[in-house]
Amino acid sequence: MREVTAYSWVPDFAQGFVKDLRVRWALEEAGLAYTERLIDHEQKLQAEHLARQPFAQVPVYRDERGEVFESGAIVLQIAEGTDALMPADPAARARVMSWAFAALNSVEPHVANVTGTMLFHGDAPWAAGYLESARAMMNTRLAQLSGWLSGRNYLEAERFTAADLLMASVLRELGRDGSFERFPDLAAYCERCVSRPAFTRALEAQLKAFDAQAPAQV
Amino acid sequence: MREVTAYSWVPDFAQGFVKDLRVRWALEEAGLAYTERLIDHEQKLQAEHLARQPFAQVPVYRDERGEVFESGAIVLQIAEGTDALMPADPAARARVMSWAFAALNSVEPHVANVTGTMLFHGDAPWAAGYLESARAMMNTRLAQLSGWLSGRNYLEAERFTAADLLMASVLRELGRDGSFERFPDLAAYCERCVSRPAFTRALEAQLKAFDAQAPAQV
Repeated sequence: MREVTAYSWVPDFAQGFVKDLRVRWALEEAGLAYTERLIDHEQKLQAEHLARQPFAQVPVYRDERGEVFESGAIVLQIAEGTDALMPADPAARARVMSWAFAALNSVEPHVANVTGTMLFHGDAPWAAGYLESARAMMNTRLAQLSGWLSGRNYLEAERFTAADLLMASVLRELGRDGSFERFPDLAAYCERCVSRPAFTRALEAQLKAFDAQAPAQV
Repeated sequence: MREVTAYSWVPDFAQGFVKDLRVRWALEEAGLAYTERLIDHEQKLQAEHLARQPFAQVPVYRDERGEVFESGAIVLQIAEGTDALMPADPAARARVMSWAFAALNSVEPHVANVTGTMLFHGDAPWAAGYLESARAMMNTRLAQLSGWLSGRNYLEAERFTAADLLMASVLRELGRDGSFERFPDLAAYCERCVSRPAFTRALEAQLKAFDAQAPAQV
């Protein structure tokens, strides 16, 4: 029994980018079937959901071990059980863990500061000045990542791992705002990851749920 | 053999807040001895360090399993080997993982946006407007965390775990800017964590390294 909690519908700009995609992708890479539990934006604020996800977000994941939230924790929990996403060697596993946290703590916050400001505060009087500073910080991190990937196809262990799944999920946001033009190597790395059939199946599954619900929301 | 890479010296505002503190704290909780490898702010940019920490930061940690970076990954690697920081029950472990990522991906970025802007961009023309927005987002997350901690002493498993170590390390930053006044329960939770003898020993160890180096830097 594996269950992924996701939204029944989100606005266009978020479709294909909600973080349950990372969990669906991990499950597809591992060849594990799952069921969906779809909630709407009223349910996410209710006590029943907050007991499962205290920050009123998705995804939540449940399997035979119990219930987990935070996409990073979920992807690693799925990865622990399969060599599809995690090498067996302890040293390599530790490196994958390092890069999983790097994706979500050293790279994603800076990407989210830029993309989130453009999406939600683009017209604010402080936006242009702030974005100049936030872009500089993001570009520093992206240049460092680019340096690491020079001569490498994947972050660690010369193979696709849970760390690449998370890093590509973060970098994918940059395809929307032109930042990839400055980092063609990161664009190529991201494409190498998201061109995997498991990603395509995961994306289709997220979008399919929205398509099914859309008429009721209009 | 356990080795923590940290800075030989940082400016006053950062003393006691550099992220190797989290690693030292975890090792103290686990009762594990370690040696220090101290680098300065020129060395952090050199190829030798970037091969160990691609984002030119500290900490880096090495033990018999190999080398790890990112404070979250390191703390969990240390926690895996000891019940001092991680319950044995698989379901409880999964919850600790959830909260470790929540601390570093759902809470820390918003805290860092506020504290980092005040420290480094306080005089920027965009700072006041941006901070109003960033504080609102941070306070949303803190209120949700406060809701979860209502009736609980620790995040999970009714005991101090690696997740509390990371969350308290994040929240501690708020003691510097007055945000705790709005969330006295979070201030009490943070104090409950940092009043542990292991934290005191870890803090003293970080500061001792700076004291030893300070004269050479002046």
